[in-house]
Amino acid sequence: MSKGLPTRSENYSEWYNELVKRADLAENSAVRGCMVIKPYGFSIWEKMQRALDDMFKETGHSNAYFPLFIPKSFLSKEADHVEGFAKECAVVTHYRLKNDPNGGGLIVDPSAKLEEELIIRPTSETVIWSTYKNWIQSYRDLPLLINQWANVVRWEMRTRIFLRTSEFLWQEGHTAHATSAEAIAETEQMLNVYATFAEEWMAMPVLRGIKTPNERFAGAVETYCIEALMQDTKALQAGTSHFLGQNFAKAFDVKFQDKEGNLEYVWGTSWGSSTRLMGALIMAHSDDSGLVLPPKLAPIQVVIIPIYRDENQLAAISEKVTGLTKDLKKRGISVKFDNNDAYKPGYKFADYELRGVPIRLAMGMRDLENGTVEVARRDTKVKETISFEGIANYIENLLKDIQQSIYNKALAFKEANTHSVETYEEFKQVLEAKGGFIYAHWDGTSETEEKIKEETKATIRCVPLDAPEENGVCMYSGKPSSRRVVFARAY
Amino acid sequence: MSKGLPTRSENYSEWYNELVKRADLAENSAVRGCMVIKPYGFSIWEKMQRALDDMFKETGHSNAYFPLFIPKSFLSKEADHVEGFAKECAVVTHYRLKNDPNGGGLIVDPSAKLEEELIIRPTSETVIWSTYKNWIQSYRDLPLLINQWANVVRWEMRTRIFLRTSEFLWQEGHTAHATSAEAIAETEQMLNVYATFAEEWMAMPVLRGIKTPNERFAGAVETYCIEALMQDTKALQAGTSHFLGQNFAKAFDVKFQDKEGNLEYVWGTSWGSSTRLMGALIMAHSDDSGLVLPPKLAPIQVVIIPIYRDENQLAAISEKVTGLTKDLKKRGISVKFDNNDAYKPGYKFADYELRGVPIRLAMGMRDLENGTVEVARRDTKVKETISFEGIANYIENLLKDIQQSIYNKALAFKEANTHSVETYEEFKQVLEAKGGFIYAHWDGTSETEEKIKEETKATIRCVPLDAPEENGVCMYSGKPSSRRVVFARAY
Repeated sequence: MSKGLPTRSENYSEWYNELVKRADLAENSAVRGCMVIKPYGFSIWEKMQRALDDMFKETGHSNAYFPLFIPKSFLSKEADHVEGFAKECAVVTHYRLKNDPNGGGLIVDPSAKLEEELIIRPTSETVIWSTYKNWIQSYRDLPLLINQWANVVRWEMRTRIFLRTSEFLWQEGHTAHATSAEAIAETEQMLNVYATFAEEWMAMPVLRGIKTPNERFAGAVETYCIEALMQDTKALQAGTSHFLGQNFAKAFDVKFQDKEGNLEYVWGTSWGSSTRLMGALIMAHSDDSGLVLPPKLAPIQVVIIPIYRDENQLAAISEKVTGLTKDLKKRGISVKFDNNDAYKPGYKFADYELRGVPIRLAMGMRDLENGTVEVARRDTKVKETISFEGIANYIENLLKDIQQSIYNKALAFKEANTHSVETYEEFKQVLEAKGGFIYAHWDGTSETEEKIKEETKATIRCVPLDAPEENGVCMYSGKPSSRRVVFARAY
Repeated sequence: MSKGLPTRSENYSEWYNELVKRADLAENSAVRGCMVIKPYGFSIWEKMQRALDDMFKETGHSNAYFPLFIPKSFLSKEADHVEGFAKECAVVTHYRLKNDPNGGGLIVDPSAKLEEELIIRPTSETVIWSTYKNWIQSYRDLPLLINQWANVVRWEMRTRIFLRTSEFLWQEGHTAHATSAEAIAETEQMLNVYATFAEEWMAMPVLRGIKTPNERFAGAVETYCIEALMQDTKALQAGTSHFLGQNFAKAFDVKFQDKEGNLEYVWGTSWGSSTRLMGALIMAHSDDSGLVLPPKLAPIQVVIIPIYRDENQLAAISEKVTGLTKDLKKRGISVKFDNNDAYKPGYKFADYELRGVPIRLAMGMRDLENGTVEVARRDTKVKETISFEGIANYIENLLKDIQQSIYNKALAFKEANTHSVETYEEFKQVLEAKGGFIYAHWDGTSETEEKIKEETKATIRCVPLDAPEENGVCMYSGKPSSRRVVFARAY
């Protein structure tokens, strides 16, 4: 149980690892860098998927599926893209195993070597744009608005469950448009979808911004991102949306005939979010007792625990709550009545706390007599005994309240950990002492950005979209700057 | 458009290929044997997924996710399993590409060779049972009821979209139990889930049966299956459910302590269904004009096509149908009002016919005046003009009627193409002249089964679960037999 969960202040990293394990979210697999997502963890991911998928469909996108394998030659077609991904590709070279004739067990059959090696997709721009070439002839075929839910592989040397794994699950949107303006509008729309999801579902406030060229997606003209702040004051990139310009259209020769009959290259976007969001969700809200889940993403929103001495008492409590569970389900609230006799109430309390169930109801004989029930909310740990009469309404409102409270708390944390500095000295002091998002002037060069990263391990998270024009000088080089950017140490 | 779709009687195989292509269901990708599932095809698959997933959850299963990669050594742990899958494995041998220093472009980096090769999962028993070892200690951890939706790869030499592709999408259930009886009950339960899905959702009647040892899943003690009949009278295996006995528990040393404190090996099952079901759905019902979709799986259930000469007429029709589309949506019916001005009604009629939309409504000025609408059902192609008053109710009932009619038609086809034979001569005659499911006596030996397959290309599809005991003699060997089995040529 949660006994012995390291505290955040003690060792944030260990706290995260232990929490992921003990709350049954995921674990490392026998294959280096690949995780097993356990049923409880996966049920949270399914809720995320459903919410995002609904938002994608509302904005006009359809799902499709493209191959896992990418011919090696495809990767080379876009120069920046290959540069970005070649170093971390899992490569399939053979298509058969056989028994070693010399008794060495199962070996790769040398006669089953592929003519061209296949890459496990690290992202699908290349295979998708090679397909789009056949789908797009005329302006009438545009816009093409497609998303896919898939697994991807990027061979990572240092891995961390959910945050950085060699295989991860994600969605990747890939759209094609007739004009640059329309593609940029799509890129921005999807950034806003991610931000809305992060804020309204994950209860996690985010910064919206644009990446510097250094941090741009390999093959993009512009990368937009949302950045969230974790409780250890490190930043986490929670979703990216890329304006691809005509880069992939040119690499794969995708042209369309416009209304005037001219042949033009198509404009593209891509955007993705992954199981990394699970890591963000955990680190943004949870506490030393375990997970804290926003109600909208909690697989179990309400748990009811009976406190009883014998079968008769259990039967009486069961009867009392039957109507309530039905009523809650009818309201779309997921509820579990835990009458498992193998565990004591105290064990159950701690277990559901660990798993982040937003509301716990406990009912014993005294409650039955008094017509009351004990209501405990996970986020604040406040308990109160209230009348059973009208409890379903109360719970429905309380869930909304908890969702909002968790967001407000995270927002206050983000605001308290957002700083503005003028000099490099001040920057380093704030970074060491406080961390968080640090707004500072930067001269716009990759050289300065890299120097600062080398010296402080802080990176430019983004040029915030809502940053006002403000003349200043770069804290590092003293050269002029017209706008502050946001630095942070990041996951 | 559908002009030129080959007829089924002309060339069934070409009809299938062209239909898959023209109805925008899927296409071959640049990678041999891998398909691209296009948005329309994928939206049918999503409906299948949702229905199956709901049924899995209703029967107590949770989803989880296990790695794409399987260490080569895992595959060898269960003797039959490795025998069954080693010949068709995609093998990852390296994890990095680099630029050829000799200018040969992008090459596999020889210094990034994996110590142990990784197999892309052809199925996940091995990686899952290696994980279950850590999850199962006591009877309290059982049953473990898990499903995963995933992509798998089996390197195929001759591929066919949906029916046999190197990469395909599927779900695979993997459960662990304390007793043999409980595992067998689970195996049978999931077979029944598949049969119910096939019959009630896909409107496709199936045989339920047990595979012969020859056709058994590699590593199973018993393989149950559902078999459907396609319109060319060939059979198609549409789902399998395996009783694994203790084979994988022994291979991966998964034991549990029972209530008496004894250590026992766990009993297992696995069961799967795949995008192959898309092929079955297409071939079971569609006709020479295109797809015929059962309403429960149709992405668009009702299309409304306005017949108009000018903007004013279109506006009048639009206004008239607004209430109807709202009403239908409220009833959970998916409806599309196609007012796209770029295409004429005749084109639209043929297009929705090709895509299998179950009900087409057409409304012109005369209908407006008369308070009527033309209703055409896709399955029978019957058109009638009926009163607009009460049309939503009419449609709701008609959809149910169509679902049932499609099933009835397929059932009648199956019954008309099910034969019983006594002699091998008769068997060969019926097989050549009629095809279909052929019930015959068999002596129970693999030798006979293989001889018949060699000589006729017919395989034993299953020993049907509902076949009565019936003494007879094997049509091939003349040896005694106690029950008829079902032969067919199959996909």
